[in-house]
Amino acid sequence: MTLTSTNICLTEYPKGLPTEETFQTTTTDVVPAGDGEITVKNHWMSVDPYMRGRMTGIKTYIEPFQIGEPLEGGAVGEVTHSGHKDFKVGDWVMTMLGWRSLFTAKVEDMQKVMLQKIDPNMLPPQAFLGVAGMPGLTAYAGLYKVAELQPGETVLVSGAAGAVGSTVCQLAKADGATVIGIAGTDAKCKWLLDHGCDSAINYKTSDNMTKAIRNAAPGGIDVYFENVGGIMLEAALNNMKIFGRMAVCGMISAYNDETPVPGPSNLVQIVGKSLKVQGFIVSNYSKYALEYFAKLGPLMASGQLVQQETVLEGLDKAPEAFLRLFSGDKQGKMLVKIT
Amino acid sequence: MTLTSTNICLTEYPKGLPTEETFQTTTTDVVPAGDGEITVKNHWMSVDPYMRGRMTGIKTYIEPFQIGEPLEGGAVGEVTHSGHKDFKVGDWVMTMLGWRSLFTAKVEDMQKVMLQKIDPNMLPPQAFLGVAGMPGLTAYAGLYKVAELQPGETVLVSGAAGAVGSTVCQLAKADGATVIGIAGTDAKCKWLLDHGCDSAINYKTSDNMTKAIRNAAPGGIDVYFENVGGIMLEAALNNMKIFGRMAVCGMISAYNDETPVPGPSNLVQIVGKSLKVQGFIVSNYSKYALEYFAKLGPLMASGQLVQQETVLEGLDKAPEAFLRLFSGDKQGKMLVKIT
Repeated sequence: MTLTSTNICLTEYPKGLPTEETFQTTTTDVVPAGDGEITVKNHWMSVDPYMRGRMTGIKTYIEPFQIGEPLEGGAVGEVTHSGHKDFKVGDWVMTMLGWRSLFTAKVEDMQKVMLQKIDPNMLPPQAFLGVAGMPGLTAYAGLYKVAELQPGETVLVSGAAGAVGSTVCQLAKADGATVIGIAGTDAKCKWLLDHGCDSAINYKTSDNMTKAIRNAAPGGIDVYFENVGGIMLEAALNNMKIFGRMAVCGMISAYNDETPVPGPSNLVQIVGKSLKVQGFIVSNYSKYALEYFAKLGPLMASGQLVQQETVLEGLDKAPEAFLRLFSGDKQGKMLVKIT
Repeated sequence: MTLTSTNICLTEYPKGLPTEETFQTTTTDVVPAGDGEITVKNHWMSVDPYMRGRMTGIKTYIEPFQIGEPLEGGAVGEVTHSGHKDFKVGDWVMTMLGWRSLFTAKVEDMQKVMLQKIDPNMLPPQAFLGVAGMPGLTAYAGLYKVAELQPGETVLVSGAAGAVGSTVCQLAKADGATVIGIAGTDAKCKWLLDHGCDSAINYKTSDNMTKAIRNAAPGGIDVYFENVGGIMLEAALNNMKIFGRMAVCGMISAYNDETPVPGPSNLVQIVGKSLKVQGFIVSNYSKYALEYFAKLGPLMASGQLVQQETVLEGLDKAPEAFLRLFSGDKQGKMLVKIT
């Protein structure tokens, strides 16, 4: 018996904003699991901004995607065939082998694709791609390990309605911080206000971000969680308190720049305010996963931390889902349900 | 008896680069020290880039200078009259009451001007304004406490021929680091090569700073000591290793900007390389002064750390000395000898 996987691949390394033409669908034959292998049918996959960095053909902290090969990314699915004693048919697993409907792989080779079992009775399986997965741990690591949030501080979050940002806001609020979220629609801002933000700023309708942040936090910002860059960073710098910390998780505003766009003109404030601006990659903080889950469980049980989702149905919608990360046309965690 | 002090004051808060007209000389009567007071005749004063930030009329981490009042800054001088039991005529002291020929002040009020006795038999008195003073401690704090230099690392220093930068280079070299200095003349670069730098880059004659740094440090930079900003920061970002640290001491290239100049377009590398970019102010590191002096003593005794100086004679030369910090027309520590 041979199975067929549908896959999404790159047709080229895009310059600037990718389009639907950047992607193509392929099908490949998949042999069901033999000895030491498992076959997994993916049910959910994640699209994340960092994937844009793997579409450049340049090695950064991670290998680039290969043209014509299935893309990779977080996915959860069910084991349909198993030749390995630790996995049985019906088990749910999370891997980095998204962007495809199914795959067979040798278990002992799957450490690099971060194979792990998940319990879909504990949380909805797609939560392991969001608050209970990489975006959630990113939020936790940035807020507590990089920015070292202290009790009673004021936190500013850009990209606040996204998968990472919305988790940052809710974690900070649960710890009693004053939280200001920045997002790009009134609907996103309303969601933020309904989920723990003390203030929410729509950057698309604000004509002066520096002033808007100052109005929301007249005493200044202790911690800035950076997902966006550009004018957000400039306005944040203007509002930081002395000894403020910036956890730099991403700068999505720059990911599709064809020609480099100059940075903020007020970086000198890093000196005068003794700021710490620190970039980080979640994979260097995986040792904190258990610590994070211990915090996450009670917060989810009490409803203090929820996962907002935008779900597109069908693997063929994965490119659209990815592109909507950059247009901002989604709320919360962007997911593709592979039925 | 009344004494006369000659003082340098601001005539205005300068826009852009200050000129000689930004400054004026005044004279004031000074009554010799009464009970609890000392009178000090200044012999040396320091000019430092940070002073430009006090000429804006805006409070930053420090109060602005007042128009028509004597400026302030590091100075060393001799006690000429004393009404305080802890000071006798002939003692040498360091204070922040530079830019004037002499002053009388109450000892108990002088903590905020950092009154301290110095021993001119230990080091030339002007060294307390350089390697054995604030610039030296700045270098030490940035390199070890902010950037956390580790054995065997590669260090890049901008403004490397200045008072702080040249101390950074020599400290790092004494610890076995590979050191690359950036300066603005061939003479400065030669001095750097003669004093511990493995490579020296003249940014005024280099047409591609990113490439010049890469040639000097093909394996990348662990620690960047930032005094300049702008194109130096951009080129440094391009060459940082993963987990690199930037100690941001100053951004002199921006201090006289009348309209804000955009920053580097490659800040996103802070994320991909997990960089820590940290600003600092030396006054927050004064607790490390003794630790620094313990390290400095043997290095000066062995000649591994020297103070290079440019000296202008006469208090009336203080404005010129200050302006030459920005034109770069000096080598090492810029000093004014007040005879």
